[in-house]
Parts: sequence; C-alpha cells; structure tokens
Amino acid sequence: MPRYRLDIEYDGTAYAGWQRQDGPATVQGAIEQAIKGFSGQEVTLRGAGRTDAGVHATGQVGHVDLEKIWRDDTVRDALNAHLQMAGEAVAIIAACTVPDDFDARFSATGRQYLYRILNRRAPAALDANRVWLVQKRLDADAMQEAAQVLVGRHDFTTFRSQQCQAASPVRTLDRFDVVRVGEAIEIHAAARSFLHNQVRSMVGTIKRVGEGAWTPDDVRKALEAKDRAACGTVAPPQGLYLTKVDYLGT
Amino acid sequence: MPRYRLDIEYDGTAYAGWQRQDGPATVQGAIEQAIKGFSGQEVTLRGAGRTDAGVHATGQVGHVDLEKIWRDDTVRDALNAHLQMAGEAVAIIAACTVPDDFDARFSATGRQYLYRILNRRAPAALDANRVWLVQKRLDADAMQEAAQVLVGRHDFTTFRSQQCQAASPVRTLDRFDVVRVGEAIEIHAAARSFLHNQVRSMVGTIKRVGEGAWTPDDVRKALEAKDRAACGTVAPPQGLYLTKVDYLGT
Repeated sequence: MPRYRLDIEYDGTAYAGWQRQDGPATVQGAIEQAIKGFSGQEVTLRGAGRTDAGVHATGQVGHVDLEKIWRDDTVRDALNAHLQMAGEAVAIIAACTVPDDFDARFSATGRQYLYRILNRRAPAALDANRVWLVQKRLDADAMQEAAQVLVGRHDFTTFRSQQCQAASPVRTLDRFDVVRVGEAIEIHAAARSFLHNQVRSMVGTIKRVGEGAWTPDDVRKALEAKDRAACGTVAPPQGLYLTKVDYLGT
Repeated sequence: MPRYRLDIEYDGTAYAGWQRQDGPATVQGAIEQAIKGFSGQEVTLRGAGRTDAGVHATGQVGHVDLEKIWRDDTVRDALNAHLQMAGEAVAIIAACTVPDDFDARFSATGRQYLYRILNRRAPAALDANRVWLVQKRLDADAMQEAAQVLVGRHDFTTFRSQQCQAASPVRTLDRFDVVRVGEAIEIHAAARSFLHNQVRSMVGTIKRVGEGAWTPDDVRKALEAKDRAACGTVAPPQGLYLTKVDYLGT
C-alpha cells in the first residue's frame, strides 16, 4: 500500500487537540474522516506532534497508508474538499508519496515551534485565539537572555507536564530565541523533540523575566531544581504554533 | 464636551460593515453600545472610513464627544471591557482627547489599506476570512507593473461601485504596491481618500494581470474607458484591511 506524507495547517481553536478522542472534535479525527470520505478507507493518521487543545499548526506532518495510488495533487485537493465541506479549520498544504519506512513521528529529526505574545493593553480583535495577550510591558531583551539559559542538553523536569509520558526528561534544546516585532513578541523554539508542555512551560517562565519579576539567574535555578513546582505559570495554548517538522534530506 | 479620538482594530467577519444599521451587527453600533455601557450616553461615533461587510481594520479612527473628562487610558480600558463582555471582535487600541475641531473623517489627510492574497492551492485554515484565496499562481511582478498604471491623479469611474456617493470620480492614488511574501501577496494602497470599492476593484483588475489574462496595457485601457463594465471582478472583502488613517502632525 502506498504511504502518503501530509503537510497540515490548522487553527486549533475549535479542537480538543491533535489526538483522536471519542466525542470532542480533534484534528486527527477530522482528517481521518476526510480520508474516509475521499477513499472509503478507515485509517489511522500518524502525526509528528500531538498538539494540545487550542494549539495551532502551520507545519504539522502526518502519514497514512492508502490502498490506491493517487496523484499527489489529487490527494491534497480531495482531502481539502472534504475538510471544507465539513467546515473544518484544517488544510492539507501538500501530499506526497513517501517510502514505506517513513514515519511522521519517528523519522522526524527536529520540531520547530513559534510562540506569539501580543504585548499591549488592548485585547486582540483580529488575533483573538491566536496570541497570548500580555498587557504589562515585557522586556524582550531580558527574555532573550533568560532563554539562552535553557538552550542545550538539560534535564527539563521543571518544564514538563506531570502527564508527560516520555521515558526521560532529558532533551537538547537547539534554539530558544525571543524577538520583539512591534507590539508582538515572537519566540522561536527548536529541538529534536520536546516534552509535553515544554515550550509553553518555558515561555511562561521567561515571561516572568520579561515583566521584571525574575532574573535570568532565577531561570537557571528553576532549571537546576528539576522540580515542576519551580516552573512559571504555563503559557496558554492559543499562542503556540507547530511550524515545521524536520526530516533527513529536507 | 471633551472630544475623544479612538484608534480601532476589528475583525470584520461577523459585521455588516462599519456603519450602524437597524438589525445587523455593525462595528459602529458595537462601539456605540460600549460607550453607552461605560458612560450612559447615547452617542454617534464618527469614523474615518465606512468599511464594507467583511472588511477588517487595524487602524480605523473614530471620534466621539463625551460629557465627562476621563483619563485616556480609562476610556480605552473601559470600552474594551464592555466590548469583550459583549463578545465583540473589536478593540480600542488607543483613546485620547483631541481639539473640538478634530473630525475623524474630514480631518483625515490620507488612508492606507492592505489587501492580502493567499496564493496557493490549499485553503486557508488559520487565515480563513482574512485573505483572498487565489489558487492559480500569480505573477506579482506583473501585478506591480500594472498597479503603477493606476498611481496618480485619475478619473477612477472604472474602479468605483455604482453605489458610490462621492461627488467626483477623480482621486489621486499615492501608492499601489504589490509584494510577494512567500505564499502571500500583499498589496499596499494609499490615497487622501478612496471611492467606494476602489481598492477591491483595483485589486481584482490587477489580479487579471497576475494570472496572465491581461497585460498592464489592458489595465490602462480599462482606466481610460471610465466605464464600470471595464473593471475586473471586484476582489472579496475578507482580504482588505484599513491599516492607517493619516492626520496632520501624525
């Protein structure tokens, strides 16, 4: 059976996250339903990252085995037609056949996330549900300094959800950069893989530095504590975007 | 009575345009309701531009006379609180007192608009209702060349809604620039004032050049025809943003 890679964009607002559940709408469930509508097959779509409720993606990747060989463009366009008919906030950016040993999750060599903060007094009208509104002025330079404390190979127990099922709390954070763009603060994170809630936990912690409550050294102490209780308030999901999954040769 | 200038952002999706109407939700109506909730006054809010249904704004400007003198921040925050309580997709970015002769519409010396096209096969998941999806590949350079035909002082009858109530069809277009940014095409328009549907009519016309159906010279002929029938299909409202209103000294 040919295997297809799907590159996926979604507005996570209306979904109880990526992973299929009985009852609530999920991104995985919406795409599996579209695949059924298109091909008649009941399949499991494997995703590179199981994003939480309210988290968005511009570069999620999944794979699925279909019985028939279709043109790549046909798969993309047909799935989009079914998704649009169902009123889903999900789009298939690209579809292509891949070797049988391609696995969206296990073949991934890196994940990239963007976290968007809107730093102003007024609520977001156009970007409601797409940013974290922080009304107190944040010092992005101080946040950037604090973020560098976390880059590298560490035990990220402090920045890991208690529900996290990963065997080890050790991860290598390749990039954690904070940039102010006008009223927005954009935070870029990259690693081979992340623990559950890791990006949002790290963002919530360096935000404390941005508002002047913590120093970068307090972030270092929180990291070294290896204690979930030392973490800042976890940043809300609506500011988080899975922007890219890396694979060898891409 | 002190006069206040309000700088306003909105997602136009759910509104029947700026201008108050009996029945359908409008941006003007939503803000007037918030002003009543805050101050108890029944007022008319004057806006710089009467945007159509579905059109967005990041820089709309209005003015209103209130009976009391309030702190600027108090006006902004109280109006936002009332707008949020009512579930409106409208935010007051700033409020400030202005001289009595300030008029949001008649004191304006310029208006700036952004038009956003998403130029790809896949539908917009995150930016649904915020862009015009054009699935055929557009040549942004050719569009830019065609756009320059329209810059300057012209009779814009071709690019004017038949409902337009302006006394004269002559306007001076100061800027009309087309830039590709990845999958997006951003079109920037600036003029002292625009005719009704002028930006969307011009965008729809240069899009014909982008897809290769027309040449820049066809756009010149359409302009010179001074005939509404010579206009390309009017671009849809959801790609249009009123981004800035200029005043002397700002």
